[in-house]
Amino acid sequence: MFNSDIYSVNECGHLMMDGCDTVELAKTYGTPLYVMSENEIRRNCRVYKNAIDRFYNGNGLIYYASKAMCVKEMVRLVDSEGLGVDVVSGGELYTALAAGIHPNKICMHGNNKTVAELQMALDANVGRIVVESLPELELIDRLAKERHKCPNILVRITPGIDAHTHDFIMTGQNDSKFGVILENGEADAFFAKAVLFENIHISGVHCHIGSQIFELEPFREAARIMVDILGNVKKKYGYIMSEINLGGGFGVKYTDKDDPISFDQFIEAVSITVKEAAAKWGMPIPFIMMEPGRSIVGTAGITLHQIGGIKEIPDIRTYVSIDGGMGDNPRYILYQAEYDFVVANRANEEKTEIVTVAGKCCESGDLLGENVPLQKAEIGDYLATFTTGAYNYSMASNYNRIPRPPVLFVKDGEERLVVLRETYEDIMRNDI
Amino acid sequence: MFNSDIYSVNECGHLMMDGCDTVELAKTYGTPLYVMSENEIRRNCRVYKNAIDRFYNGNGLIYYASKAMCVKEMVRLVDSEGLGVDVVSGGELYTALAAGIHPNKICMHGNNKTVAELQMALDANVGRIVVESLPELELIDRLAKERHKCPNILVRITPGIDAHTHDFIMTGQNDSKFGVILENGEADAFFAKAVLFENIHISGVHCHIGSQIFELEPFREAARIMVDILGNVKKKYGYIMSEINLGGGFGVKYTDKDDPISFDQFIEAVSITVKEAAAKWGMPIPFIMMEPGRSIVGTAGITLHQIGGIKEIPDIRTYVSIDGGMGDNPRYILYQAEYDFVVANRANEEKTEIVTVAGKCCESGDLLGENVPLQKAEIGDYLATFTTGAYNYSMASNYNRIPRPPVLFVKDGEERLVVLRETYEDIMRNDI
Repeated sequence: MFNSDIYSVNECGHLMMDGCDTVELAKTYGTPLYVMSENEIRRNCRVYKNAIDRFYNGNGLIYYASKAMCVKEMVRLVDSEGLGVDVVSGGELYTALAAGIHPNKICMHGNNKTVAELQMALDANVGRIVVESLPELELIDRLAKERHKCPNILVRITPGIDAHTHDFIMTGQNDSKFGVILENGEADAFFAKAVLFENIHISGVHCHIGSQIFELEPFREAARIMVDILGNVKKKYGYIMSEINLGGGFGVKYTDKDDPISFDQFIEAVSITVKEAAAKWGMPIPFIMMEPGRSIVGTAGITLHQIGGIKEIPDIRTYVSIDGGMGDNPRYILYQAEYDFVVANRANEEKTEIVTVAGKCCESGDLLGENVPLQKAEIGDYLATFTTGAYNYSMASNYNRIPRPPVLFVKDGEERLVVLRETYEDIMRNDI
Repeated sequence: MFNSDIYSVNECGHLMMDGCDTVELAKTYGTPLYVMSENEIRRNCRVYKNAIDRFYNGNGLIYYASKAMCVKEMVRLVDSEGLGVDVVSGGELYTALAAGIHPNKICMHGNNKTVAELQMALDANVGRIVVESLPELELIDRLAKERHKCPNILVRITPGIDAHTHDFIMTGQNDSKFGVILENGEADAFFAKAVLFENIHISGVHCHIGSQIFELEPFREAARIMVDILGNVKKKYGYIMSEINLGGGFGVKYTDKDDPISFDQFIEAVSITVKEAAAKWGMPIPFIMMEPGRSIVGTAGITLHQIGGIKEIPDIRTYVSIDGGMGDNPRYILYQAEYDFVVANRANEEKTEIVTVAGKCCESGDLLGENVPLQKAEIGDYLATFTTGAYNYSMASNYNRIPRPPVLFVKDGEERLVVLRETYEDIMRNDI
């Protein structure tokens, strides 16, 4: 019925989540409200970590891709599970450092890092910086020299893999703002110069082939390509790189249409492929890194809204209006992303209605779902949207000057606030 | 060449805006940077206001639809030009009140106002509340009674007009989360009950038929329909309503593909139609209200970014990467909205290149334009995006924890900050 066993229904017909009654949470903390299960997040972290231990002798590191949901307590949580953190901006780096994670466990990304961001990463001694182009490498080399440092660099490669997913979130193909292209010889030319820089250490290569991927083969292919680059660069220049980072993109279940693979299967497949490829080149097996984000936190989150209006238009559709919308969850208007919904205080009832869930923004496109099954609802009921743990809080806006909701972590029947509700004063703070 | 005469090019080849050198502004205030011309905003306000005076004897009020760009100084500016302010949420109301506008000049909207928002509007004595449904009217009546108040109510009507525009922003048709439907008899049933409520005063009707409309006829048609409702309700129930609010939606020029009508023509067309329709019913000419947002501020704004990377992919495309993107301007990823660009420090050069403007977010869809003409740019150059005055700052997010840019007003060669740049601390403020 639900996409994780942390969800159930209690005797009142209320949706339960990691031991907490979601209706009580909505009443106590108000709506809209993001709720995330700490147990689900920890379990997902462990699936990845244990798979690295089991299939790859622990010779790797899982980085949580914090863009999925980046707040201090989230960083602390994944840190406590032994994961590193992948950051894509100065703001994410700032958050990770403020959360107290060791900088060596931070990997810094960004297709267009500013000079200030690179300085910040170097000054913080982040463990790895992923470089996107030769001009950026030159810049890092210069900044590192000024600081008498020699940072570890991963080279982002565009491997030409076309993982089957939504156009917007497909990044492995050559037509990409990211990375150095392999197929047209750009990568060759890159390494010919890169190996000569003196103030950097190119520790390995990185690729990211897409998002919401439900197949193993694109990852196997990417792993083979990455190992081959290590082999070829060693052969050609005698330069030893010992790390490969295969990014993220592991698919999660939003609705019944999604049929995800168990995350450890990705690690197993990649581990086998990397070992085989390394053996072929006669090289030590490289250190592997992967960067799951959505698959760590996506299914761990729900959003609770209160229903404020129900508009039945005969022969057209029924709009169920909630007290949030594209502000707290822009994924429907952005990608027409599909979600499962349940009326949290009627979770034991059949879904007899087909409705359109409308937000409160002054915009017709502010919907969270069209023609979705739902229990018969009344004004004042609470709506739960599933699988909002990733790219909801992180992409939220103040459109219409609507404050962003708080984030609550729940675990074994206990809840704790990890992000406070934004106030009108917060929104207006920088107005003069 | 440009969409307003506030723009020109100086002897250094720099883009000038309302007397200011945009390159100097970028260097002084950093990038990304929103810049808005006070003269352009004031001129747009006056076009509307003067048209109401000229064509309708001043018997109306123009409300600035603040969702387009809602910060304190913007509210003060339109207030100083004699406009009212249309707000669609508690946050916009809070901002308008904080800016010091008289509450009587505020019109409160929202398809799903919360009880707290309605209480706030009533307690502030806003001039008009636009009601969307009978349950909402009942709620307002009850809340007003508790407060011994009798608020002015406009009834939002869905008039069944299908203005030719983008699907997402088309709101006049019956399939809408907004308003009371006219065509299927819902409006009749609504007024039969509404005229009996004791703690409200229904002063008129409201409709909004869409956005980015370049034709007069839909507005004429809407005006006729609104006046007919006033006539019919008087005839049937003896209930006098004396106001019509025709919303906004007046198209502005984003690129050369757009051919907007002078805004006063909308007012003229509506004025003539309303007078004719009122005469037909033998009623005094109603007070008219309109709610332009985009057309007040859209062309008055640009965004300045710095170019951090240029990636030429032979036979595919050239990516020009900037230090902002979907965070400060989500309209391309949301609506594939088209913009005009210029390299601000090479504004006198020919646009010889065809490029794709990419943002710095870790997302392939983070683009501001695909295959757009641009001057030959270099890393470090400044890119100006035109017509970003509306729905850019207001829709901005902190995706990737990127701080939102500051807003600068310029006028006759002088600039002043009206919104400060967000800091990393601001973003992290509510993290526990």
